[in-house]
Amino acid sequence: MELALIKLGGSLITDKDRPYTAKPEIIQQLAGEVSAIALQNPHLKLIIGNGAGSFGHQSAKKYNTINGISTDVDKFGFCLVHQDAIDLNRLIAKAFLQAGLPVISLPPVTMGVTENKKPIKFNYSIIENTLAAGLIPLVFGDVVLDKIIGGTILSTDTVLAELAKHFHIKENLRVQLINVGNYPGVYDQYGQVISEITSANYPHIKNFLGESKSVDVTGGMLRKVKEFLAIADLGIDCWIIDGAVPGNLTNAVLGKSALGTLIKA
Amino acid sequence: MELALIKLGGSLITDKDRPYTAKPEIIQQLAGEVSAIALQNPHLKLIIGNGAGSFGHQSAKKYNTINGISTDVDKFGFCLVHQDAIDLNRLIAKAFLQAGLPVISLPPVTMGVTENKKPIKFNYSIIENTLAAGLIPLVFGDVVLDKIIGGTILSTDTVLAELAKHFHIKENLRVQLINVGNYPGVYDQYGQVISEITSANYPHIKNFLGESKSVDVTGGMLRKVKEFLAIADLGIDCWIIDGAVPGNLTNAVLGKSALGTLIKA
Repeated sequence: MELALIKLGGSLITDKDRPYTAKPEIIQQLAGEVSAIALQNPHLKLIIGNGAGSFGHQSAKKYNTINGISTDVDKFGFCLVHQDAIDLNRLIAKAFLQAGLPVISLPPVTMGVTENKKPIKFNYSIIENTLAAGLIPLVFGDVVLDKIIGGTILSTDTVLAELAKHFHIKENLRVQLINVGNYPGVYDQYGQVISEITSANYPHIKNFLGESKSVDVTGGMLRKVKEFLAIADLGIDCWIIDGAVPGNLTNAVLGKSALGTLIKA
Repeated sequence: MELALIKLGGSLITDKDRPYTAKPEIIQQLAGEVSAIALQNPHLKLIIGNGAGSFGHQSAKKYNTINGISTDVDKFGFCLVHQDAIDLNRLIAKAFLQAGLPVISLPPVTMGVTENKKPIKFNYSIIENTLAAGLIPLVFGDVVLDKIIGGTILSTDTVLAELAKHFHIKENLRVQLINVGNYPGVYDQYGQVISEITSANYPHIKNFLGESKSVDVTGGMLRKVKEFLAIADLGIDCWIIDGAVPGNLTNAVLGKSALGTLIKA
């Protein structure tokens, strides 16, 4: 059994410069590509996650939700962040349903709690059960209750990484994690995309990654590569690919030649 | 500690004759009333649930989701029903947030599974945790995975009844359940609203309830009264009130004189 977790980057599916503005054409294209994947490999299990882009980050920033909730205003902000995330997720769900895919939106807030921003006691049985039923779980970066600071935010990257590890270790599935962004991959010092990063060439690569132009909002490419390398060490192949190139997502997931960077052990 | 579970009836908040058509004015009015309740009794815990009305029933009927899912078409239908339910729930969430209430939408599909349509192994910890955090859980009638027939639908009534029993028994809370519809209450044989139903006068009342004009889609007033009487027997007061009368919901929940029928032990 194989599982592919596909992260649709917030900068790819929304207009980062315009609050609450999605990009319907690219969302539709990506839904079509996932549909092609499902048709060509019906035995592949899929989990989709979407970033928050210009939806979730508005209220998340205003209420500083990531750093905890204590006052009534914090709590109200927490609810607004959740609703903003649902508003974008709903558009993704509709496009995927339109493409004939049985996606079911499952908010991570319902799955567990964190302790000082670290996920503890997560219950993924709803994800396991929906996968077993032949459905496609659709998750997103969401608010989550926190035992120490009241509440915080779990990024889509964290949710998908936790799920990837869970299914790889607990269910012994062959798992791949595909990060679909609006940039061609990880650049080297000459502006060329690095096709493969492993722990062997990482010490050399990390020297110029800090200066990379391909930085996204969640904290830069160096952090992303570091996180993916840790996941790859467990035996999970991680891709950073350009979702704006039609067919690229389909090719990457189906193991065909794709434009992007593969991070592996 | 006290808990009020408020069911906003599908016929009240949507136009039953026009698919996917909500009634924004009445939704806004109800949000305002719940806001007044929260202000006047800040220690009262609240759970809100909304019926599906002309949203969920479209695809639910088309795909006959309540009776199980086995084919790919069934599974796709299951996902559509969930999405339809979210579409209406989102409008409720937005109106309640607009009224300043910290509501957080929590889909029942994430909470457990049924066995031949009967709820088993439900985990309400997310509801417990959000209540403890001072937030207002917002639930709805939702699809749910089923161990025997693959999947089915849990009505808003069932979800709220299960939650009412859970918090009454497990957490020893004083619980009341308020059914807010678009009819004045339970009628007697002369067309007058019965103010109180108990096990003492029920044997007399049930004779003419079958013929009552105040029948709603979920199976008639007789069934509703019977279900509420069983809940009332546990010590949970149940109201059937008219939500279209401004102030009526606020009055019922705050224990003031309200138009409607009280069903109690």
